[in-house]
Amino acid sequence: MEEPELQRLVAAIGEEILARLGKAPAVAAADSGACCQQCGEGDAAVCADKVCRVVAAGAGRVSCCPAVARAQPSIAALIDHTLLRPEATRSDILRLCAEARQYGFASVCVNPYWVPLAAEALRGTSVKVCTVAGFPLGAAMTEIKRAEAEAAVRTGATEVDMVINIGALRSGDYDAVKTDIQSVVEICHRAGALVKVILETALLDDRQKVIACVLARLAGADFVKTSTGFGPGGATVQDVALMRQVVGPEVGVKAAGGIRTLEDLRRMVAAGATRIGASASVRIVEAAA
Amino acid sequence: MEEPELQRLVAAIGEEILARLGKAPAVAAADSGACCQQCGEGDAAVCADKVCRVVAAGAGRVSCCPAVARAQPSIAALIDHTLLRPEATRSDILRLCAEARQYGFASVCVNPYWVPLAAEALRGTSVKVCTVAGFPLGAAMTEIKRAEAEAAVRTGATEVDMVINIGALRSGDYDAVKTDIQSVVEICHRAGALVKVILETALLDDRQKVIACVLARLAGADFVKTSTGFGPGGATVQDVALMRQVVGPEVGVKAAGGIRTLEDLRRMVAAGATRIGASASVRIVEAAA
Repeated sequence: MEEPELQRLVAAIGEEILARLGKAPAVAAADSGACCQQCGEGDAAVCADKVCRVVAAGAGRVSCCPAVARAQPSIAALIDHTLLRPEATRSDILRLCAEARQYGFASVCVNPYWVPLAAEALRGTSVKVCTVAGFPLGAAMTEIKRAEAEAAVRTGATEVDMVINIGALRSGDYDAVKTDIQSVVEICHRAGALVKVILETALLDDRQKVIACVLARLAGADFVKTSTGFGPGGATVQDVALMRQVVGPEVGVKAAGGIRTLEDLRRMVAAGATRIGASASVRIVEAAA
Repeated sequence: MEEPELQRLVAAIGEEILARLGKAPAVAAADSGACCQQCGEGDAAVCADKVCRVVAAGAGRVSCCPAVARAQPSIAALIDHTLLRPEATRSDILRLCAEARQYGFASVCVNPYWVPLAAEALRGTSVKVCTVAGFPLGAAMTEIKRAEAEAAVRTGATEVDMVINIGALRSGDYDAVKTDIQSVVEICHRAGALVKVILETALLDDRQKVIACVLARLAGADFVKTSTGFGPGGATVQDVALMRQVVGPEVGVKAAGGIRTLEDLRRMVAAGATRIGASASVRIVEAAA
């Protein structure tokens, strides 16, 4: 597809989606009790995603559903246990991995340098190693984001959270943004790894957020993600709901940045998040227990 | 050199330097009027560095020296005109380049994605293109920092500001830190480009700052630099003075992060900085004029 055509298409999709969102409720997903109506005996395999959302939004609201008992532990399984602070040491990373094993978090999310250490520490467990590419500014060259993703999956990561090229997006260079994502997606999918595309929503207006989601979908991303945690703002319920509506049910939405309590997590999941990035993960799951 | 030997050596050097610094004044360089005594007619070629420092610390203090008239414009030539915000657009970068041409800044410092654009915009001028590697967290893999530096110099950068591996340093993995720097230095020097090593001083204690400076020297860096501008703190007079004393007169010291006024710049130069990273560069040179 040529650049002008892509630009027109993306702009048109963006406008259409924004227009429709103007008529729809922002948060439509976590309707209390809907799980039971849909799944009968509450088969967690059928409605795992829905159950997780409703459970996380307040377990009492689906207490009639037998799936709740099975879904409850999955609060931990929603969380990427995250430590991306640059000053984190070897022992900090090892403690993060030990906590992830103990609580059954979906993954540990660490900077690339620590991927081999985390992969070794988590060998034989179900906890994945997630890392980042072009992080947190997103303004690296595409060839470097791709090389970073390639090195990450080669050394043990199975999930890569890449930052969109925010400046290119804001400059209207949609083809550059899409190629950037596609390049990382291609190298990761070849290795069986997932890609989450970080929008850094605090630096975008709603139209740009919609366009970024559309480009991430077009590029084959597995998730869109709100924030790096290093920007001027973190995840908001409004952004998560917007992103969920734009990407539809087949692409994940990861809420990250400023999620410090169980209540924060519940609000994000209720708005449509299927993964949570948090550093306060232990406190969150202990509050849930 | 084996890792234990390097560790012992670096630790010993660090302790020795810290002990000596305890007895020496932190800021020793910009003694008012010393320029004239040293250079007679104030030949800027002989004492350019000294004159710059003294001028920047307060022009009146060396008004007896004819070199002042020639040194005055070099305030702009001390500054890397910097725009590393991830949301910067194409037009922001072009404006930055236009300002750099107009005022004669040493360089523009931009994210890697914008290097080709800046190099094109500054072709035929004396303004260099500076970019970053492993920025701002420093926790990328060494092979990626190296690849990033290689791509940067290939596409038009002649200065690369790389971030030290802060977590490895704080873990005592000095060999990893040194190899990381060396790897970038090697690829840059091969292309005739300079390397500045960012310590992110706000995340280090004094002993770690000294060790980082020693490692940067051992690795052949051209400059040490205080901060990324994205960390919890920016340049301080104390850190610049410490870094200058550790690296000696042959390695540059770049102060960056929070330098917003001419007075800020003067304090940094007086403490030993030979390059300044700033976004408020236009305001600073206009204040100087």
